[in-house]
Amino acid sequence: MRLALLYDFYGELLTEKQRTVFEMSNFNDMSHGEIAEELGITPQGVSDFLKRTEKILNDYESALELMKKHVERKKAIEELTEMMDAIDMSSPVKLQIHKKIEELL
Amino acid sequence: MRLALLYDFYGELLTEKQRTVFEMSNFNDMSHGEIAEELGITPQGVSDFLKRTEKILNDYESALELMKKHVERKKAIEELTEMMDAIDMSSPVKLQIHKKIEELL
Repeated sequence: MRLALLYDFYGELLTEKQRTVFEMSNFNDMSHGEIAEELGITPQGVSDFLKRTEKILNDYESALELMKKHVERKKAIEELTEMMDAIDMSSPVKLQIHKKIEELL
Repeated sequence: MRLALLYDFYGELLTEKQRTVFEMSNFNDMSHGEIAEELGITPQGVSDFLKRTEKILNDYESALELMKKHVERKKAIEELTEMMDAIDMSSPVKLQIHKKIEELL
């Protein structure tokens, strides 16, 4: 789950091979053995390669904290939405404001 | 201006030397000649080094678009603030909502 999110944020910064192997393992549920066969390397090689890729994703998060900021922003938006819902206003205005708040995600 | 913003978003991904030379040039207003003297390389070397650093920053923006998203988010927040200001509510509630909106920046 955390890895999939990190991939969402930083996948664009990986090489094509890193993306392919990551997706095989995490999204296509392929075993290291199956990936190894596909790529013509050993299962240990696949394991090492995936560990390096995960480290790269974690290093990007340490530097930029996009995931952390995203979680904080989501929480603030939920709180803001609750505050708004407590205020008496017409439905069209409420709808407009909710749409604008959603743009912030 | 654009470069300073890019540096704000992606500076953490540069090496220490890239950061130092970038800051000498863009924040301390040092000439390429002055930086060259400081580092013991040629002014042309400084120029090439800065161009490579700027390319790295631009490549990160192409991949992650953090600056673009930040500008869009800022615009949405301004529009949301205007919508909120048009609604009749008590001052304490207004203040609370404005503080929450600010968290989103």
